Amino acid sequence: MNKLLVLIQCSDEVGLVANISRILAAHHLNIITMREFVDEHDQRFFARISCNGMIENELALKAELQTALPQNALVEVVPKVDKQIAVLVTKEFHCLSDILIRNYFKTLGADVKCVIGNYENLKELSEKLDVPFHYISHENLSKEDFEAAIIQQLDKYELDYIVLAKFMRIISPLFVAKYKHQIINIHHSFLPAFIGASPYQQAFKRGVKIIGATAHFVTNDLDEGPIINQQTIHVNHTYGAKQMAVAGREIEKSVLSKALELIFDDRVFVVGNKTVVFE
Amino acid sequence: MNKLLVLIQCSDEVGLVANISRILAAHHLNIITMREFVDEHDQRFFARISCNGMIENELALKAELQTALPQNALVEVVPKVDKQIAVLVTKEFHCLSDILIRNYFKTLGADVKCVIGNYENLKELSEKLDVPFHYISHENLSKEDFEAAIIQQLDKYELDYIVLAKFMRIISPLFVAKYKHQIINIHHSFLPAFIGASPYQQAFKRGVKIIGATAHFVTNDLDEGPIINQQTIHVNHTYGAKQMAVAGREIEKSVLSKALELIFDDRVFVVGNKTVVFE
Amino acid sequence: MNKLLVLIQCSDEVGLVANISRILAAHHLNIITMREFVDEHDQRFFARISCNGMIENELALKAELQTALPQNALVEVVPKVDKQIAVLVTKEFHCLSDILIRNYFKTLGADVKCVIGNYENLKELSEKLDVPFHYISHENLSKEDFEAAIIQQLDKYELDYIVLAKFMRIISPLFVAKYKHQIINIHHSFLPAFIGASPYQQAFKRGVKIIGATAHFVTNDLDEGPIINQQTIHVNHTYGAKQMAVAGREIEKSVLSKALELIFDDRVFVVGNKTVVFE
Amino acid sequence: MNKLLVLIQCSDEVGLVANISRILAAHHLNIITMREFVDEHDQRFFARISCNGMIENELALKAELQTALPQNALVEVVPKVDKQIAVLVTKEFHCLSDILIRNYFKTLGADVKCVIGNYENLKELSEKLDVPFHYISHENLSKEDFEAAIIQQLDKYELDYIVLAKFMRIISPLFVAKYKHQIINIHHSFLPAFIGASPYQQAFKRGVKIIGATAHFVTNDLDEGPIINQQTIHVNHTYGAKQMAVAGREIEKSVLSKALELIFDDRVFVVGNKTVVFE
Repeated sequence: MNKLLVLIQCSDEVGLVANISRILAAHHLNIITMREFVDEHDQRFFARISCNGMIENELALKAELQTALPQNALVEVVPKVDKQIAVLVTKEFHCLSDILIRNYFKTLGADVKCVIGNYENLKELSEKLDVPFHYISHENLSKEDFEAAIIQQLDKYELDYIVLAKFMRIISPLFVAKYKHQIINIHHSFLPAFIGASPYQQAFKRGVKIIGATAHFVTNDLDEGPIINQQTIHVNHTYGAKQMAVAGREIEKSVLSKALELIFDDRVFVVGNKTVVFE
Repeated sequence: MNKLLVLIQCSDEVGLVANISRILAAHHLNIITMREFVDEHDQRFFARISCNGMIENELALKAELQTALPQNALVEVVPKVDKQIAVLVTKEFHCLSDILIRNYFKTLGADVKCVIGNYENLKELSEKLDVPFHYISHENLSKEDFEAAIIQQLDKYELDYIVLAKFMRIISPLFVAKYKHQIINIHHSFLPAFIGASPYQQAFKRGVKIIGATAHFVTNDLDEGPIINQQTIHVNHTYGAKQMAVAGREIEKSVLSKALELIFDDRVFVVGNKTVVFE
Repeated sequence: MNKLLVLIQCSDEVGLVANISRILAAHHLNIITMREFVDEHDQRFFARISCNGMIENELALKAELQTALPQNALVEVVPKVDKQIAVLVTKEFHCLSDILIRNYFKTLGADVKCVIGNYENLKELSEKLDVPFHYISHENLSKEDFEAAIIQQLDKYELDYIVLAKFMRIISPLFVAKYKHQIINIHHSFLPAFIGASPYQQAFKRGVKIIGATAHFVTNDLDEGPIINQQTIHVNHTYGAKQMAVAGREIEKSVLSKALELIFDDRVFVVGNKTVVFE
Repeated sequence: MNKLLVLIQCSDEVGLVANISRILAAHHLNIITMREFVDEHDQRFFARISCNGMIENELALKAELQTALPQNALVEVVPKVDKQIAVLVTKEFHCLSDILIRNYFKTLGADVKCVIGNYENLKELSEKLDVPFHYISHENLSKEDFEAAIIQQLDKYELDYIVLAKFMRIISPLFVAKYKHQIINIHHSFLPAFIGASPYQQAFKRGVKIIGATAHFVTNDLDEGPIINQQTIHVNHTYGAKQMAVAGREIEKSVLSKALELIFDDRVFVVGNKTVVFE
């Protein structure tokens, strides 16, 4: 008896659930959880169906579903294997170490193939925790050459996702295009507040009483990609920008960790500039 | 084009969703949201299905579903009309006023038929906000006679739910039995901590750093009924029992309000001593 | 034995607490709580001191403190009397009703002298809860004349604060200048995100996973005044702009209520475009 | 120019702050933050005063303060050096790794001298992160001998605190007595709910909608010691006991981390079975 995951995104019409569940039942697949959402505004249907059962030919099931669904339906029949990821970092350790520790104890739900850093200070930790670290400095390199060097490393692996765990360089449209909906960033503010550089400094100047963090997919518009997860915490007048940064790290870590858990568990659908997240 | 709500609870088996959705599709009902949960431990299936469509005979649809489902399935086809409720209070105004204000502006999702209080101090507010208030003192009455007097009033209405909005009398098994899964209480602690009397006094003595509130269905075991909703807030050493009570009122109000919204929207299933809540 | 509140804001120097507490001790005032903050960046000192004791001449104590403190020190010796307030509204009832109910049961910490609305729909509630309602429509009036009519009403009372409880008109610099640091607004977003009109519509379009509310003092820059209190709640893909607005009302109410409690209890100091809040 | 911390706990009387601040001013110490609390119920005074200035003789300052304060006053003049700690673990890695990573990057505010585990599985991680691990199995040992073996190791260091980071053995009164107010435990429930074994199993059975974690000082009464910090998170009907445990680990980690930060920064006073925490 196996677990099988079916992911569907298509335009909405009457009888979709009936069609899908009829096909699954015909394959003796028992639906354990079915998360389903209809965006009534855009007439769009999303489903994540977890089944118990044995299936011999996943491709056949996928084709059968595709035929029964509206044209251009996106259908995935997901085998339950760990995702392959790479992590890009600059100097800060808190997000990376959280990922590496979970990876080390096999609770990440993904396999970290490598860490790439534009500084060397996180090399030691990565290697102690059994993950190769590639040091690629941005200094004396054009953005093109810097990114080419990174891509050269990434190309050595078959990656599902690239995680920017406080990677403090803006990446180019070419890089983004190569990994569409595969790059996840953690931004240290509750977007859309404080887009861009030094959000804690901006937050301090504005005198806000909450700060936050946002995990999102990376698109060409800086900090404008589809949001996956956000959290906030309370601060007060005793927090300078530095204290905000210290407190903020705790939720950056927590928000990124939660976003990755959702993504690695195939619970996040991207649609336009938004996400549907079946938590 | 109408909205229709189908609620199902039954033992689990292969093909349930297929059967249900086939029947709905045959009636040209389009599933807008389907929330579904299988309790794998107890092999029990729960579904809340919201459809768009026109149906002539709700009873026929219900019968058809019942036939297609396992024996003893609980099926409801819910017409979208406001619930009828009564509210029981003692002296505190914060939960009652929240309910009465929403009722006054027609955003409660229910219709408050009357308020019954064992003190008179909330009579004026109820009547100002156009709800009859029945004053029934517990003094000089046995519990039996006190409850008989209350039931006499309640019997004048066709009630779906009775809300104990800080009603500080323990009600008898007979009363509870008469309104099974229809009585909702707000308890001023994060149950199961601080069961019984004076939870804020208990919390103060224990030196906790959080306090909370719990909305639950009333059963014969004091504060042991199925929990619908809970929230907590942070307190610290500067809070005496009285300050905890003041702060606690805000979340009592909020927790009860949220629980009622969920119940009035048919999102809460009771199963044994627990709830399934499709938020 | 009385409670007395001493509020101080001045430039920082060595020995301030010693000087202040010496003077209080000389008057046989026992410090019950002392909240004190030094903004090291701006070298500025803030204190809120609550004392037990009897004092014959508050003005003499104030003068004595003023003499012992740096030049231009702001000193207040606050008698414990309720603030006088007016509330301005448009059509939404949730913030106003929360204020009126607390006022009705004398737990607001302030006395609502009147409600002014540019629509008539909240008149009935205000009057039922024993507060005069002045209907002043903005239609067919210039902003100058509209505000003049409001000010004419406000001038009938000796007001400490004016609360904009979802008052949906932008007020002019003249109005703001007349009531410096006395006007409190509730904005339905976690500022600085979604400044201006239709923040829930903006939030929906951006696909955020949190929404929020902000209570702030009103200055001439729209939604840019000193922030008093902020809260956020989680939303997800199932929320349209309308559902966000419904959920948001609960925290708008809660944030404004908390901000007012802090202000009426003299816990909020304004300094530049920020606040120091001794919670 | 140095930072100096003065901690005071004594019975309350008029003029305490005046006396303390006069003495500090006489030593040319400028008060940067003063957190002060009077427990009016027990007539007890607590203060944490952070000063800027140079002091030659800390003991002389302490003696001077002691003389000026009520008898039996507890006075500490704290030099700003890192605390020395040991961590006791069983099998779970999440709390330990959080501590070790912060220790590795010098942001813990304490120095981890060793880890002691009654299983061997965390040895590798500890040593990779440069902290000695002592494996002391409880098997085939009486509780006395087991604890004697632990104490033998602990005695090799001059420890300020012992952190039980998911150490799943109940420790004896003798052990507790030896380290009064020095042992910190993380309990995986929002105490006082679910005291003792298997709190997540208990929580699942009760059908709660929140779970939590509590950091507390260890006393002889199981899970009854002074609470330092607590947090809760929402769960729902889809969580089995195992899923609750997985979600719970995130806040166990976070609660313990916050409690340690507060303790290592000398912000926690113990008084009877409670704490005063100047956050």
